[in-house]
Amino acid sequence: MTNRPDFLESKIIDVEWGIEVRVVKPCNLYGCKIGDHSFIGPFVEIQEGAVVGRNCRVQSHSFICSQVTVEDDCFIGHGVLFTNDKFTQGKPSYDEDTWQKTYVGSGTSIGSGATILPVRITSNCLIGAGAVVTKDLTEPGVYVGNPARILRKA
Amino acid sequence: MTNRPDFLESKIIDVEWGIEVRVVKPCNLYGCKIGDHSFIGPFVEIQEGAVVGRNCRVQSHSFICSQVTVEDDCFIGHGVLFTNDKFTQGKPSYDEDTWQKTYVGSGTSIGSGATILPVRITSNCLIGAGAVVTKDLTEPGVYVGNPARILRKA
Amino acid sequence: MTNRPDFLESKIIDVEWGIEVRVVKPCNLYGCKIGDHSFIGPFVEIQEGAVVGRNCRVQSHSFICSQVTVEDDCFIGHGVLFTNDKFTQGKPSYDEDTWQKTYVGSGTSIGSGATILPVRITSNCLIGAGAVVTKDLTEPGVYVGNPARILRKA
Repeated sequence: MTNRPDFLESKIIDVEWGIEVRVVKPCNLYGCKIGDHSFIGPFVEIQEGAVVGRNCRVQSHSFICSQVTVEDDCFIGHGVLFTNDKFTQGKPSYDEDTWQKTYVGSGTSIGSGATILPVRITSNCLIGAGAVVTKDLTEPGVYVGNPARILRKA
Repeated sequence: MTNRPDFLESKIIDVEWGIEVRVVKPCNLYGCKIGDHSFIGPFVEIQEGAVVGRNCRVQSHSFICSQVTVEDDCFIGHGVLFTNDKFTQGKPSYDEDTWQKTYVGSGTSIGSGATILPVRITSNCLIGAGAVVTKDLTEPGVYVGNPARILRKA
Repeated sequence: MTNRPDFLESKIIDVEWGIEVRVVKPCNLYGCKIGDHSFIGPFVEIQEGAVVGRNCRVQSHSFICSQVTVEDDCFIGHGVLFTNDKFTQGKPSYDEDTWQKTYVGSGTSIGSGATILPVRITSNCLIGAGAVVTKDLTEPGVYVGNPARILRKA
């Protein structure tokens, strides 16, 4: 075969940076906003329009997609995956208008390996490692499992 | 300690490319086949002998191992992990003849963070984010959970 | 915005190497110990103080944190995530003295996509792909699910 693919490089481009942010490369950050004093680990991708607040940690291998807002003082563990497309038409949508938002309130911590469907998570929640969050979490507490269920209230 | 490891680099080597493929580096692709118009995101590994069809997206952080075939028009989300060794001898096997195949039919979409044991998945399935697929999926439908169970038929 | 982040690079630094170790870059390894004849795949992070024994494989996308010990002859699949902080104070702790240890006995194999809370896993266990291990595993056997439960004894 002599076809030649179009090779792109992971990049850090068009990011709105707060003060004193630290970033470990390689990572792929584009069109997003990262707040003051936050940390972004290696092998992370953050897409266009995503917002990470101040004093957050986004650990290695995590993926934060478009239409996700993470408020201040949040911890996003290693390998945490956000989503914005619930395949509501029976397949992935490439129309951004059909994507759904995720909101993570301030002070919430998400354990490593958690997967987050497009939901609203209130402040000061703890999401256990490996949890799959499929519904809004409206009260502070500890949530674990697949699908994530409340383990105890905060 | 003065031992020096053998440092290898992630590479893109011996790939059979279709036309108009796009690839975001860094990734580690070797001995595989990628079909026309497909997209491979960053931090992806695809091993020798794996086949990805036409018009597919393989998103960031995914791993597609040897003996996996993904047909045309499939979506492989972020952090999706395929497997080919069920530890049937009570431990990992380094004999490829004991590895098992995975087949993903055309038009199937696999949500982010899903883990796929060596199975046969029919066409036009939706696998939910975070699902762990442990058995063949023989009819089109939506499958979620660990282990993945049918949520509804297509 | 004209703020400039502090860009760091993934690195391989202060590692105590056994003989004939192989490492695929990029990865982020610092202050850890890797035993003789072990293999570390690409997109792996291993933190300060973590110990990996001899004849181990740590596959792509895995994360091994501080206070994890993996004994000899272990297989750590792709995208396996270890943890050391159970958020016991209701939030992440940045005081290492509060972190908890994980021990993986010799000959244990951990399937791809598994998440491991700070636990003690005995020798010769098989942890299924996608499992979330939340408690000590005191007898050899096959463990699967979220939370991981014994499927059968060894």
